[in-house]
Amino acid sequence: MDRFYAVIPAGGVGSRLWPLSRASAPKFLHDLTGSGQTLLQDTWDRLAPLSGDDRILIVTGQAHQGAVVEQIETLDLKNLVLELSPKDSTAAIILAAAILAKREPDVIIGSFAADHVIQESEVFQAAVREAVAVAATGKIVTIGVEPTSPSVAFGYIKTDGALSVDGAPSALAVDKFVEKPKMAAARKYVESGKYLWNAGMYVAPARVLLDQLEINQPELYASLMEIADAWDGMYRDSVMHKVWPTLKKIAIDYAIAEPAAEVGLVAVVPAKFTWHDVGDFAAIAELQSNGRHGNLAVLGDAKVLADSSSGILVSDSDRLVALIGVEDIIVVDTPDALLVTTKEHAQRVKQLVDALKATGHSDLL
Amino acid sequence: MDRFYAVIPAGGVGSRLWPLSRASAPKFLHDLTGSGQTLLQDTWDRLAPLSGDDRILIVTGQAHQGAVVEQIETLDLKNLVLELSPKDSTAAIILAAAILAKREPDVIIGSFAADHVIQESEVFQAAVREAVAVAATGKIVTIGVEPTSPSVAFGYIKTDGALSVDGAPSALAVDKFVEKPKMAAARKYVESGKYLWNAGMYVAPARVLLDQLEINQPELYASLMEIADAWDGMYRDSVMHKVWPTLKKIAIDYAIAEPAAEVGLVAVVPAKFTWHDVGDFAAIAELQSNGRHGNLAVLGDAKVLADSSSGILVSDSDRLVALIGVEDIIVVDTPDALLVTTKEHAQRVKQLVDALKATGHSDLL
Repeated sequence: MDRFYAVIPAGGVGSRLWPLSRASAPKFLHDLTGSGQTLLQDTWDRLAPLSGDDRILIVTGQAHQGAVVEQIETLDLKNLVLELSPKDSTAAIILAAAILAKREPDVIIGSFAADHVIQESEVFQAAVREAVAVAATGKIVTIGVEPTSPSVAFGYIKTDGALSVDGAPSALAVDKFVEKPKMAAARKYVESGKYLWNAGMYVAPARVLLDQLEINQPELYASLMEIADAWDGMYRDSVMHKVWPTLKKIAIDYAIAEPAAEVGLVAVVPAKFTWHDVGDFAAIAELQSNGRHGNLAVLGDAKVLADSSSGILVSDSDRLVALIGVEDIIVVDTPDALLVTTKEHAQRVKQLVDALKATGHSDLL
Repeated sequence: MDRFYAVIPAGGVGSRLWPLSRASAPKFLHDLTGSGQTLLQDTWDRLAPLSGDDRILIVTGQAHQGAVVEQIETLDLKNLVLELSPKDSTAAIILAAAILAKREPDVIIGSFAADHVIQESEVFQAAVREAVAVAATGKIVTIGVEPTSPSVAFGYIKTDGALSVDGAPSALAVDKFVEKPKMAAARKYVESGKYLWNAGMYVAPARVLLDQLEINQPELYASLMEIADAWDGMYRDSVMHKVWPTLKKIAIDYAIAEPAAEVGLVAVVPAKFTWHDVGDFAAIAELQSNGRHGNLAVLGDAKVLADSSSGILVSDSDRLVALIGVEDIIVVDTPDALLVTTKEHAQRVKQLVDALKATGHSDLL
């Protein structure tokens, strides 16, 4: 574990969580579980026991610098990488990998999104330890979540035979990654016992990730290396401003993981923890099954009067919210915008955000 | 019509319209129809063509003096009667009758609630003219609304044969008043053609009302006369403070109309106008059938994004309200309280207000 460095890409607006999640205050900066901590703080606290506070690097947007530094008091500022604009996960993770590899050539990085919820931290940590052991053999290792239902919301990882790596008894080879399936296919996957949910967690030697990117996306690789070369010197800003805007936007699954799986370079550690990507308010309602008002989950300090109502109320004010006879309702009460919908329609919040953009209400996004 | 004086009892909180309607700003002070005028202003404008602006008296609570004077610019302050506390309709209307009878012994008063909605003003005015003609013969005349459905929300008036009064061709004798019926009875009433909705509108010589009260409620009569005797003199305040708190709370239907009907003293003018007592938000939604966002009625200046939603949104702020896939919804957005319910449960808002009282939230009432 001495080689391990955690990377937290803290990006993504979380449109489906509007009006709580905004461009200026995205999902990871909020407490969505009622834990009293934000998702970013929870992510940090899950990783710190593995790496130590001084070996966690956060990649986030410039606009979030203040909030991140405020929320993570133990963050070493040399471990804060600020993006000029969103360029998808490859740019974020590989720039971190390249910067860390310059500082420490044999580093093994593990990348974990800032906005996921994991309930059993010890199970997660044990899986990361196994993944680091496998990564030390030169593999790209993903942590695959054992499915609890045939979900069509996630991509899947098709596993192959067992690997035999010391310190990683449950590691498996990966046959391939598969996209979000239809329900019939999802059922087959889960029944077969060979498929895991792809939670987008990658553990690998930085060097292996860089090599794979060089093979698959040579231009993007060259640009990121140009930035990384300048990062710890006096020309960081000028190189960033020149190169960053030109970067190709591509997810790390396409740029690295899938091609690497094709050449047999990817392994997986299956893990049995409760994992949520908290995609929409219906998911938050599930997380809050210990809701404080009968069947109504409540996030925030609102005064609540709920009569024969269920669903979720999210409020960042203390004004009174009264609900009567509304089932599976979603109410999100913020100072400048109020959302009322139902769990059934939770995914449609994204379209609403698109409509707001189209109608010139970007001040509300 | 020279003898006619209009009286507007402006009372009642309208609990079912919380949190829009409050003790401090009851129903009649709001624009509930989207007309751009409050219900009180609409009531005034309906009566002024009959009586003139200088012959309309308003009875309201002390707390509403400022709002009433602001809303009704042409109100003569000698025509503003302020109650120390709510004492139901007999006290309000008969004090007005007694004050006016002192000033003008043969006055015929017509009492019309401040918080009803009537769509065809000319039809209403024609009915009042007929009612005044019948009242001049010494009767208590009510205006009965021709039912458009077997409603169980209203009391009914059972009519008897036609009267023959000059200037009142449609006037009928009244057999009796009946309470809000069950549905089966309501159907029979409407099928019979003999029943009208009791809209609580009374037109009568003040003297006749006073005589009937003296017969039926002699103590209340004596107390109200004591106040009226002092009203236009220097002891108004001291007499009010002594006597008003002792007044019996009783509706004018029980104190005067029903006993008078038993002795054949009540007549009715049937009228065919669209009448609403705007009892709850479901009723307001009906009034707003010309809603501005598809099937969603909107009252107020909110920015609205509505997707596959119907019902009513009432807002007194300009913040954005986004609704997705909520049908027959009621959303009432005020600075210190938010209500979300459905048309089906609109009547239950009253219980919620009771719960607020019980839990010490009277600041929100």
